[in-house]
Amino acid sequence: MLETSPAAVEASLLVGLRQAVAAGDAIVARSLAARMLEEDALALLEDLQPAELSRLFAILGDESLAQLLARLDDRDAAGILSRMTAAQAADILEEIDPDDATDILEEVDPDLLEGLLVAMEPDEAAEIRDLMSYPPESAGGIMTPAFVAISPGLRADQAVVALRRVAEEAETVNYVYVVDREERLLGVLSLHALVLTRPTTLVRDLMISDIVTVPVLADQEDAARILTDHDLLALPVVDLEGRLVGIITADDVADVIEAETTEDIERLGGSQPLSEPYLRASPFLLFRKRVVWLFVLFMAQFVTIEIYSSYEGDIRRAAVLGILVPILIGTGGNVGSQTVSTIIRAMSVGEAEPRHILRILRKELITGLGLGLTMGVLMYGRGFFYDQSDVDARALALTVGSTVLILTVWAAGVATVLPITLSKLRIDPAVVSAPFITSIIDATGVVIYFTIARALLF
Amino acid sequence: MLETSPAAVEASLLVGLRQAVAAGDAIVARSLAARMLEEDALALLEDLQPAELSRLFAILGDESLAQLLARLDDRDAAGILSRMTAAQAADILEEIDPDDATDILEEVDPDLLEGLLVAMEPDEAAEIRDLMSYPPESAGGIMTPAFVAISPGLRADQAVVALRRVAEEAETVNYVYVVDREERLLGVLSLHALVLTRPTTLVRDLMISDIVTVPVLADQEDAARILTDHDLLALPVVDLEGRLVGIITADDVADVIEAETTEDIERLGGSQPLSEPYLRASPFLLFRKRVVWLFVLFMAQFVTIEIYSSYEGDIRRAAVLGILVPILIGTGGNVGSQTVSTIIRAMSVGEAEPRHILRILRKELITGLGLGLTMGVLMYGRGFFYDQSDVDARALALTVGSTVLILTVWAAGVATVLPITLSKLRIDPAVVSAPFITSIIDATGVVIYFTIARALLF
Repeated sequence: MLETSPAAVEASLLVGLRQAVAAGDAIVARSLAARMLEEDALALLEDLQPAELSRLFAILGDESLAQLLARLDDRDAAGILSRMTAAQAADILEEIDPDDATDILEEVDPDLLEGLLVAMEPDEAAEIRDLMSYPPESAGGIMTPAFVAISPGLRADQAVVALRRVAEEAETVNYVYVVDREERLLGVLSLHALVLTRPTTLVRDLMISDIVTVPVLADQEDAARILTDHDLLALPVVDLEGRLVGIITADDVADVIEAETTEDIERLGGSQPLSEPYLRASPFLLFRKRVVWLFVLFMAQFVTIEIYSSYEGDIRRAAVLGILVPILIGTGGNVGSQTVSTIIRAMSVGEAEPRHILRILRKELITGLGLGLTMGVLMYGRGFFYDQSDVDARALALTVGSTVLILTVWAAGVATVLPITLSKLRIDPAVVSAPFITSIIDATGVVIYFTIARALLF
Repeated sequence: MLETSPAAVEASLLVGLRQAVAAGDAIVARSLAARMLEEDALALLEDLQPAELSRLFAILGDESLAQLLARLDDRDAAGILSRMTAAQAADILEEIDPDDATDILEEVDPDLLEGLLVAMEPDEAAEIRDLMSYPPESAGGIMTPAFVAISPGLRADQAVVALRRVAEEAETVNYVYVVDREERLLGVLSLHALVLTRPTTLVRDLMISDIVTVPVLADQEDAARILTDHDLLALPVVDLEGRLVGIITADDVADVIEAETTEDIERLGGSQPLSEPYLRASPFLLFRKRVVWLFVLFMAQFVTIEIYSSYEGDIRRAAVLGILVPILIGTGGNVGSQTVSTIIRAMSVGEAEPRHILRILRKELITGLGLGLTMGVLMYGRGFFYDQSDVDARALALTVGSTVLILTVWAAGVATVLPITLSKLRIDPAVVSAPFITSIIDATGVVIYFTIARALLF
């Protein structure tokens, strides 16, 4: 219990940084900033006053501050930049890759945005304006214009000289793109192909012209999937005329996939996805993202209760029937949860597709049958041990055993067909969360159960 | 309804490929193979006879076949290689990056393995033997030895010449590593730094010596996290003496993260992770992975029933109490599912850590309180509409309203504390699946409900 609380660590880092800034001590300021990075506490920079930020800029320089801001989430970085002078903020933004700078600027107050862009070098500002014109969730929204392009008629050694001039601006020179005079993409070659070949070879003879591209308005998730499926380090983005307008790099894709997967998991758990990193999310945000589905599920449960109440007469005749409701619908719900999680994940990584529906359904129904027989036999055996004052022991056991069997197969079917159907309708299948499937099994399960009970018991 | 079924498409592709192979038609064989790749149907290659595979090898060549096999999952690729001659299989394996070739060979029948390794070039076989000596889930298990290393005393132009000799063997030359005579890692430089600097600059002056590395026995997930957090394209792997033994490339990491996330989601849904891609998993495998947790949850539900039965007297006094059980514990369970999904995901992407437990708990309890008050008020209002022949209307409404409030806060607390505690104990927090949390809320919720009911109603 002698651990220092994270809050105390953060407080002391902030005090130390303030003192270092006041004293103009670059070494201490730098090491405290590194420690804040380690502690995931860079957001503390937001607590600095504008004058302190200005001094920190003077001590650390634009490049170091750019590195720190790039590790913050976009909104925090935007907040810090907003409290610096436009000239300083512009210097820092110029040090950040244009695609990341765009993401930050999208979080800046619109009143300040224009001032920042005007303060930047015209070329870099123009790049950012271009990027801001694409939807944030599109390939255009995550691409960078900082690629390297050369013309097909150059010799390898000329190309290297040309690259030497532009390489500093480029985010990656792993791939060098070959374009014609209209900037249409003709091919790609790797830097090492260029460097490691005979100097007189022509670019046109070195390049690979069978290239994977993505349209600028494609969904960012599709772009990410193409890049990872082909194990590329960068994916070229082209407009409708086939002109190369940007590239998407592997590091951006990791962020896209991580964010999309987080959304899937949050949806599967039964909430709307958070728009912020978890630790930064306020209870009010968590509340808003959860209350909608919670309310929908609550309403669904009222339906279950209405259905359940309509069998009150049966429960009065045999109280044990009521007692066993939770385990029967619960087991069905659990099978539904297992099935829907597996299928939604398989679809989101591209392992299963709507066109496979019959194959998937067959697989899941057979599995459900196996699980249903196993749990059904257990339930049948256990059924003899309950109060049978009102009913025949064997009939009760048969009722609960066959209910488990049927509900399990039913749950497997519902949990398979619903997400795949949504996906066919181009709705994100993850919205059929596990709790949603469970609610459906609850309501329908009660009907199935009492129908069987009436047939076998009374 | 005129869609061609995937099975029919696959059957015709296979027939076509067989005919092309028999006729020795390379162009048709190549285009059918490309179509199979598109249709995700490469596993069809497994249906070819050994003699047909041999002819396919003769037609397409080792490089093309290597590209196809690299897109298959490891077990399928191993199956195909096993039915070719050792000489052909070895030629193909030599064309595949050593880390990927190792993954395939790990799936080959042990009796055949030695024959394949002997048939390969001694250097490449030795690399693979090295890689096979590391645990598959460790950094060593996913690294490739195909990196490029140079000594610090070279000039930039000498280094480029040296690279020209080795680059063909390397998986990536984006980074060039600098090592001393004992192969200890001194620094790293990018190929473009080398190419684009003055030719006489020394490697030692160009390299960055402040480098991120990972120990060879580190967990693959940790290695993946380090690479993505630092936005690297490759991460050097070092042994205990600081010697560079391999590198992990960004494309391998995407696979690791995808596989680990899939495991998390399957666990969260209440099953053990599948060891195979979904479409390849047999119903029997699905059954085995689900039945264990299903059985555990089934047993937990018996506990709930035992608890529930002990309140049978109360239900006899007021049947409405029994009717309302599902909606009360259901709402608690839904809050638990929402909370546990969000927290487990936040922990697995490193946004939340066990040391933040108090901050997270406060956030979740406040959120739970907000949700509890909202749903509690709704339930209170709805409570007046149920049968109150046996109890006081206001007391019943107060009972169900306050039960929802308390259960919601309780669910938020349990769903927060359990995964974080497991994580502190170094157990994967994803094992507390949503259904498991729901079961705990069910059992404890019944006690809370009837305790309140007894206090307020009777």
